[in-house]
Amino acid sequence: MFRRIENREISLSEAAELVGGSIIGNAELAIRGIVSIEEFAPNKLSLLTGKSRKVLDEVVARNINGAIVISKAIDITGIPNSISLLVVEHPIPALAKIISLFYETADPLRTISPQAIIDPSAQIGKDVSIAPFCWIGAGAVIEDRVTIYPQVTIYPDAKIGAGTVIHAGAVVREGCRVGAGAVIQNGAVIGSDGFGYYPTATGLKPVPQVGTVVLADGVDVGANSCIDRATLGVTSVGTSSKIDNLVQVGHNVSIGQQSIVCGQAGIAGSCKIGNGVVLGGAVGIADHITIGDGCRFAARSGVIRDHPDRGDYAGWPAVPAGEWRRMVGLLAQLPSVLKKLKREKT
Amino acid sequence: MFRRIENREISLSEAAELVGGSIIGNAELAIRGIVSIEEFAPNKLSLLTGKSRKVLDEVVARNINGAIVISKAIDITGIPNSISLLVVEHPIPALAKIISLFYETADPLRTISPQAIIDPSAQIGKDVSIAPFCWIGAGAVIEDRVTIYPQVTIYPDAKIGAGTVIHAGAVVREGCRVGAGAVIQNGAVIGSDGFGYYPTATGLKPVPQVGTVVLADGVDVGANSCIDRATLGVTSVGTSSKIDNLVQVGHNVSIGQQSIVCGQAGIAGSCKIGNGVVLGGAVGIADHITIGDGCRFAARSGVIRDHPDRGDYAGWPAVPAGEWRRMVGLLAQLPSVLKKLKREKT
Amino acid sequence: MFRRIENREISLSEAAELVGGSIIGNAELAIRGIVSIEEFAPNKLSLLTGKSRKVLDEVVARNINGAIVISKAIDITGIPNSISLLVVEHPIPALAKIISLFYETADPLRTISPQAIIDPSAQIGKDVSIAPFCWIGAGAVIEDRVTIYPQVTIYPDAKIGAGTVIHAGAVVREGCRVGAGAVIQNGAVIGSDGFGYYPTATGLKPVPQVGTVVLADGVDVGANSCIDRATLGVTSVGTSSKIDNLVQVGHNVSIGQQSIVCGQAGIAGSCKIGNGVVLGGAVGIADHITIGDGCRFAARSGVIRDHPDRGDYAGWPAVPAGEWRRMVGLLAQLPSVLKKLKREKT
Repeated sequence: MFRRIENREISLSEAAELVGGSIIGNAELAIRGIVSIEEFAPNKLSLLTGKSRKVLDEVVARNINGAIVISKAIDITGIPNSISLLVVEHPIPALAKIISLFYETADPLRTISPQAIIDPSAQIGKDVSIAPFCWIGAGAVIEDRVTIYPQVTIYPDAKIGAGTVIHAGAVVREGCRVGAGAVIQNGAVIGSDGFGYYPTATGLKPVPQVGTVVLADGVDVGANSCIDRATLGVTSVGTSSKIDNLVQVGHNVSIGQQSIVCGQAGIAGSCKIGNGVVLGGAVGIADHITIGDGCRFAARSGVIRDHPDRGDYAGWPAVPAGEWRRMVGLLAQLPSVLKKLKREKT
Repeated sequence: MFRRIENREISLSEAAELVGGSIIGNAELAIRGIVSIEEFAPNKLSLLTGKSRKVLDEVVARNINGAIVISKAIDITGIPNSISLLVVEHPIPALAKIISLFYETADPLRTISPQAIIDPSAQIGKDVSIAPFCWIGAGAVIEDRVTIYPQVTIYPDAKIGAGTVIHAGAVVREGCRVGAGAVIQNGAVIGSDGFGYYPTATGLKPVPQVGTVVLADGVDVGANSCIDRATLGVTSVGTSSKIDNLVQVGHNVSIGQQSIVCGQAGIAGSCKIGNGVVLGGAVGIADHITIGDGCRFAARSGVIRDHPDRGDYAGWPAVPAGEWRRMVGLLAQLPSVLKKLKREKT
Repeated sequence: MFRRIENREISLSEAAELVGGSIIGNAELAIRGIVSIEEFAPNKLSLLTGKSRKVLDEVVARNINGAIVISKAIDITGIPNSISLLVVEHPIPALAKIISLFYETADPLRTISPQAIIDPSAQIGKDVSIAPFCWIGAGAVIEDRVTIYPQVTIYPDAKIGAGTVIHAGAVVREGCRVGAGAVIQNGAVIGSDGFGYYPTATGLKPVPQVGTVVLADGVDVGANSCIDRATLGVTSVGTSSKIDNLVQVGHNVSIGQQSIVCGQAGIAGSCKIGNGVVLGGAVGIADHITIGDGCRFAARSGVIRDHPDRGDYAGWPAVPAGEWRRMVGLLAQLPSVLKKLKREKT
């Protein structure tokens, strides 16, 4: 969590120097906070993440003595002098840097609570915070500077890498590994049993799920997401990949490095997802599918075949994004086209 | 939670008076419980929520000396005298009122447990119940008559409004606000970090998420739903809006008043959803979309453009519901239509 | 959870006898572990679950003195002598049996923790394990050999059947029943309030949800899945049905026996799902729908009408799977077909 730094004040020119942007307006404007565009106020810095003038026009109408970070790509004609602009190539990294001027990381725990239960055989590193009501099983390894919020269960033989933060209610199951420098959001489950059954005369029986999950360094996992352990071997996610909320990752999936999986996406068992892949919200991938490096799937795509080649895809079944847009356009015209064809016929 | 009131008995005419309906049958029938239609039995009151005769016919075949609440819209010809009918305009509110005759609210906790950990700086109102294994952080405010079930974590500086119930395993993150008279179901996460990253030479880096979530009074949140905190500013939900299970609400979304978001719907970052909006199950809305007051989207709609105008929509991409139905109908005919066109051609 | 048995060694012929397969290669090969195909190594047994030669070819290229369980259906020409094959009709049950030779069930708890809070009126059977930080409400019944991991809340009057395992962070709400021999994964919520509201002059009001959930014996529930309690009566799941992660089951749904509900599927209120039904990942079913025994819906199907008849279905709205495949094929051709038709016209 973050805490606002009291009484912080910088000039707009200091902000510009930090992020490498250019100023149009008052470089000496005192900036006393960074706020959302809805909260825009005198001496506040705000930000337009999009490339549209629409929101800017609403702000302009308020004519306030503040500053706005905007993309080079936005047309700025007609902005009144009262509003100073900090023009940058990439607004998001600029935003991240400026926020870090006004907020600092806070750890409300700063100790190992006597009301946590830690197995004597668990190894706990230096400067670790473990909140009350956490349970750390036998043989677990908690590396240095890990922060564990309340109600977290770390099953036996799990390992949490240095500097990682695990939020309240998350679970890391037996033998699973979370890398260093990661953030596991509330309610996330790392290592739930894979979903594998087979029919018998007395009902469906489970295949014992004896594998684990290995998340590399910097793999963040969103709230209430589930990453199933492998049946045999590992379910793995590569360095710096990011998983949003309510995502399902099936058993024996492997995801490469720096890939992004947006909210409510689902990846069925044994898929192989490459590096730098982007799965939009609620994308679904059938089992045993291979997705190549750099593939990007629009939200809600349904993927039912391999996509080895880098590219943008959309639709169900997913096809190249441009093709999907054409199909959708034609579908909208279908009623009139068919009517016309029939009429000409008669 | 609710507890059945022992030995409660009312006459059917008392029920009719309560809900403003008319009786066909025995007004003096003793009603000793309200049950589902599957459990229909002598001296029980049950209810048909739909407008179809189908289920009624199954019940009629059982010919039981009980009573049924039904909509005016259902054809009641042929119902035997054994079954009394309580005919109302709106069955659901009638159901709610009659249930309240037979069940009362129960609080199994009725105290602040010594096995909860509450920071000394937290403010706790009157008649608050806090279960064992809850953790309430510094500066948190718990208003009067709040009930908090076990395993709940309230992060520092969060605020819970009067009379609200928070079920086991839910989490309210730092600085977030839950209104009065709300119910937060199990495992819901209010204020998880928004999903924002940017590429750097050493991997994807997070944008610090320093905003909060503000839920107005009467905003219920379903089990395992996630409402992300804003990057800057607030993610907000207006008075009396209701969110079902497994819903994802992205950072900086605003939802108006009395809107309904059904299970597994997902709203990407920075959307503006109006008042009285209905999102059916698994509806997805792309980021930065504006939805006007009174828009209703059928289950599974995929929304990728603004919908400022009140109306019913469906499909992916979402279009007016009637249009979607036509397109779906044409699609089903497409094989035969195309075959016919080709045949005529040759 | 499972623990690897130290120093276990069997011969390939022993494995073959156990699973009823035939050996091609070295029947006396010592097997010292069962591993994923990625981990394939000398004296290890691995498995090909699919029916494709693709993965086998990769393994063959490594030419290792191990053994592989494969389906009769795979063409095995060209496999070098170094790799022994155990050929079976059904690889998955074979896998399950062989895993059970190398792994045993482990219970890290083996006692009732003094740091669990159990209401004096709760009934606790023999050989029950209850971890720290669990809360068991008044009147709850925990039958023999139940294992409850940390941070689990069992609300008043709930009942857990013999031998069932409940993982950390799961919740069983008031009056709900979990059958015997079941596994409830982390974060699952059994009995959250159904989603029912009605409009009033002062906002949306909830219909009191006074019913329960009844899960029969052998009903497994996946991580972070939600099964809503009935408004009146019960939401029920029949013997040996299996529910994956992040699934939503609405109030008053009934699911039959030996049905399978894959990850992120959603079943709206009052649906009646038969026996032996399969719902693929992210399938959605509208409220009040009836699905007959043996119906199977492909992943992402959207079901908006009754499907009484056994069969394979796909699409949105769901239609017979073959029909959906034809429609999808035609859609892909639509641009060229329409272009051709228009050209011929002029």
